[in-house]
Order: sequence, then C-alpha cells, then structure tokens
Amino acid sequence: MTRHQLVVEIKEKKSYLCVGLDTDISKIPTHLLSEPDPVFSFNKEIIDATRDLCVSYKINTAFYEAQGLKGWAAMEKTVQFIGDHHFKIADAKRGDIGNTSNQYAKAFFEAMPFDAVTVAPYMGADSVKPFLQHKGKWAIVLGLTSNEGAQDFEMLHTGGEFLYEKVIEKVAEWGSSENLMFVIGATQAEAFESIRKLVPDHFFLVPGVGAQGGSLESISKIAMTKDIGILVNVSRSIIYASAEVDFAEKARNEAFAIQQEMEKYLP
Amino acid sequence: MTRHQLVVEIKEKKSYLCVGLDTDISKIPTHLLSEPDPVFSFNKEIIDATRDLCVSYKINTAFYEAQGLKGWAAMEKTVQFIGDHHFKIADAKRGDIGNTSNQYAKAFFEAMPFDAVTVAPYMGADSVKPFLQHKGKWAIVLGLTSNEGAQDFEMLHTGGEFLYEKVIEKVAEWGSSENLMFVIGATQAEAFESIRKLVPDHFFLVPGVGAQGGSLESISKIAMTKDIGILVNVSRSIIYASAEVDFAEKARNEAFAIQQEMEKYLP
Repeated sequence: MTRHQLVVEIKEKKSYLCVGLDTDISKIPTHLLSEPDPVFSFNKEIIDATRDLCVSYKINTAFYEAQGLKGWAAMEKTVQFIGDHHFKIADAKRGDIGNTSNQYAKAFFEAMPFDAVTVAPYMGADSVKPFLQHKGKWAIVLGLTSNEGAQDFEMLHTGGEFLYEKVIEKVAEWGSSENLMFVIGATQAEAFESIRKLVPDHFFLVPGVGAQGGSLESISKIAMTKDIGILVNVSRSIIYASAEVDFAEKARNEAFAIQQEMEKYLP
Repeated sequence: MTRHQLVVEIKEKKSYLCVGLDTDISKIPTHLLSEPDPVFSFNKEIIDATRDLCVSYKINTAFYEAQGLKGWAAMEKTVQFIGDHHFKIADAKRGDIGNTSNQYAKAFFEAMPFDAVTVAPYMGADSVKPFLQHKGKWAIVLGLTSNEGAQDFEMLHTGGEFLYEKVIEKVAEWGSSENLMFVIGATQAEAFESIRKLVPDHFFLVPGVGAQGGSLESISKIAMTKDIGILVNVSRSIIYASAEVDFAEKARNEAFAIQQEMEKYLP
C-alpha cells in the first residue's frame, strides 16, 4: 500500500486506528477453543467487526510463534483474510546483517502479503535497508518505544542528543516518507514535538494508547500532520473487550468509540 | 544446557565451533530438491556429518521464515533432530515489550527445545529479561556485531564509552554468566580486549569468521578464558563447501579443519 492510498483510507474512514492482533490463545473466549483454528476464528470475527473503523491491522508475530507451526499457519491465514484495503503490519521487530534481513523481508513481503515490518535499528544500515527495497512495502523502525526499558538505551545521551534522536535522523537518510515510518510510543508524549521536527513528513506508528496508558488526545494534537501522519495502535482494550460470545460486538464498540474520538481530532 | 555442561562438551570435543544452519533453499544441492522437505534433508546430513566436531548449532530463523509454513516446519524438525548434546541457538534477534518477549521465549524455549535465543537490546530491560527467566535457557544479547552497520549506532560515543560498551555493562546486570552471553563479531578483533575486561566470565557468540573475514586465531587469543568463553560460529564456508552430492563430506572436512585449528588454541 502506498502512502497516498493510506492517507485516502484514513480520510475516508475518518480513522487512523490500527487494531493490534496480539492474539493470545489463553485469553480468547473459551467457546472458540473447539474450533479447528481458534486463533484464526477469533481474528476473523474481530476483523469483520472492525474493518470499517480502522485502516490498519498489526499482527504481533510473537503470539503466533509461541503456538509453533499452527500459530504460523494462523498468522498466514489472518494476513490473507485482512485483504488489500488495510495496511497490514507484521510487528516482528526484525533486523540482522544484510543477507539475513533480506530473508526476513522475503518472509513478510513475499511469502506473506504484509505491507510493513517493524524493524529494530541496533545493527545499523545493512540491517534496515533490505526492508526498503520492496516496492510499495515499508519498514517501521523503532524510534522511542512505549515501555519502561526505553530509558535504558534509547534515552542515553550521545553527543548532545538522545540515542533515539540519532537513530531517527540517521535512519531517515536511508529511506523516505514513502517507505519508512517510526515507532513512537504514546507514553512518550513530551518527546513527540521534537521528534516531529526531526521528521516532519514521516508516519509514526504509535503503540501504548489503552492498556499502557498513553493519551490519544495528546499525541494526536502534537504529532498530526496535514497528511495525518500517525497510525495509533490499540490491541488489548479492543480485542479483549469481552471474553464471552459477544467479544466481537464488544470489540466493535470499543473500536467505534476510538474512531469517534479520532474523528474529532482530524482536520 | 547449563554453562558447566557446555564447558565439558567443549573440553571433550576440543572444539568451540558452532555450525550455523543458514540454510537457503536456493543454495542447497539440487538433488535434494525432490525430497519432501529439502531444507530438513540438507540439515540432517550436515548435522550428522559434523556432530562430533562442534558443540553448538545455530539456526538462523530468517532463512526458515522466508519459506513460510514449510520453513517453520523444517526449523522445528531440525532443532528436534539435533538432540540434547549440542547447544541449540535460535539466531532470531528478537526483543519487544515484556509481555511480547515472554511470548518469544515461549516460542523458542517451550514450543521448540532451543537452549538460547539471540536478543536485540534496543528496547531495554523488559525486552531482555523474559528470556532470562527460563531455567537452563540463555539470552545471547547483541553487543558489537560483525557487520558494517555496527558503526551506525553500536559505535556511537555516549558519555565516554561506546554504546555497545554501555549495552554490555547494563545487560550484564540483568543476568549472570550462567544465562547470558553476548554476540561479538569476529571482525571487531581490536575491541575484544576491552570487552573481555567488561565481562570476564561471560561466553561470547562470535560470528564473522569465514565468509565475513574475521580471524579465528586473533579472537581465540584475545577472548578465551579458563572456561573457554567463546563459541565461534561458522555458517556458509561449512554448509556450502560443496553444492554437489558430496556436500556433507565437504562440510565435514571444513568443520574438521576448523576443529583442528581450535584444538591448537585450547589450553
């Protein structure tokens, strides 16, 4: 999906919501456990209940890998099921030497039809660039994350700047706002303003609203651009809104409330 | 596998070789392509030809993920096939917020019987610690990698030290030499001495000998401890020593030459 298509989707749906499919088999409604593929059945209902309210789905690969082969199968079926009208993110935090990152890009962009992969920047240029060589595909590189551990290294001072600022500036040289986004955690509201100055045109993927406590209003006011420029991910508070048979309906209600709030912040 | 067991294996086999199974279906001998699972067939022959010469196998997960579901199946079969007498590393470069890293630990330590996972440190404590909570299992955290991109961030100056030094010192506080190793690239020989001072007891997983040009002699002389303390990974020059039917025999010859050289450096 191109940047232009994504912006059109956002404006039509009046939503910059990304629904996070961190599907944990121990948390899904028990009536689904008798299905042949409970995780996929769960995802299917969540997706059908939220399609018109979000522009993106983010699959957290860890939850699928933890289920072994059947988890990987559920991931493949889920990304296929989402279809072509949503921006499909593999939240995989990959990154390795060039020939290995190439293989990860193949895994998510060729073997599966994801639009984007989240990428860890520690290993530098050759670990990130292979994800930028696929037409219409994206690397979403970790900038400043939403977790407590962000303080350990991301916020180290290095030559008058934080490490995360150096990372964002450097990585921005390797791609453009057409194939590169950054992960900026919603819990880091005070940093959004300076980050937006560093990369005025890039989209941010923003986790941390909801279960982790970030404010949708703050980050929307600070980080939004004329092309919107933010995708806000919400996972647990949507997909686990209910553990009963009404889970999809309750997920929709939750996604609808978020979409309605987003509509207020859109220009 | 415990540290003690690993050291015993090294001393018995007079080898600290880790064979890297970066198995690329486009590079394996063509006669294997008619097998039901060519990647697993290839790995099986490589493993049987090198078992007595190495103490560890490292599976580069990217090459398996690039093949989709059948790749993941080949990985599961391969790690099972290796058995309990080798230190089995998932070279996966994972790392995410705590509840997600937990799932990755489950994937590699519970759903599959790996002994260790390579972990990217960028996201800090909560992204690394979940890999340290499993008895007898290891996190192998990226310190200073062998690739050119290591210069971009790992070698940034931060408060009188390189970032990789800060990472190694900080991460070492989260575990012990019984559950934590570091990845230090063989191409970084000049840095090994100071890194060894920072963490005198930890094992290093050392890639970059062979195809990437690092010297086995240099790193062995500089980094070896009384408990050996290094696992040297060699992938391509062993597993692709021949593309013909004699590939396993040629792989063995290559692994044997390396083991013989290692024997010279051992105390």
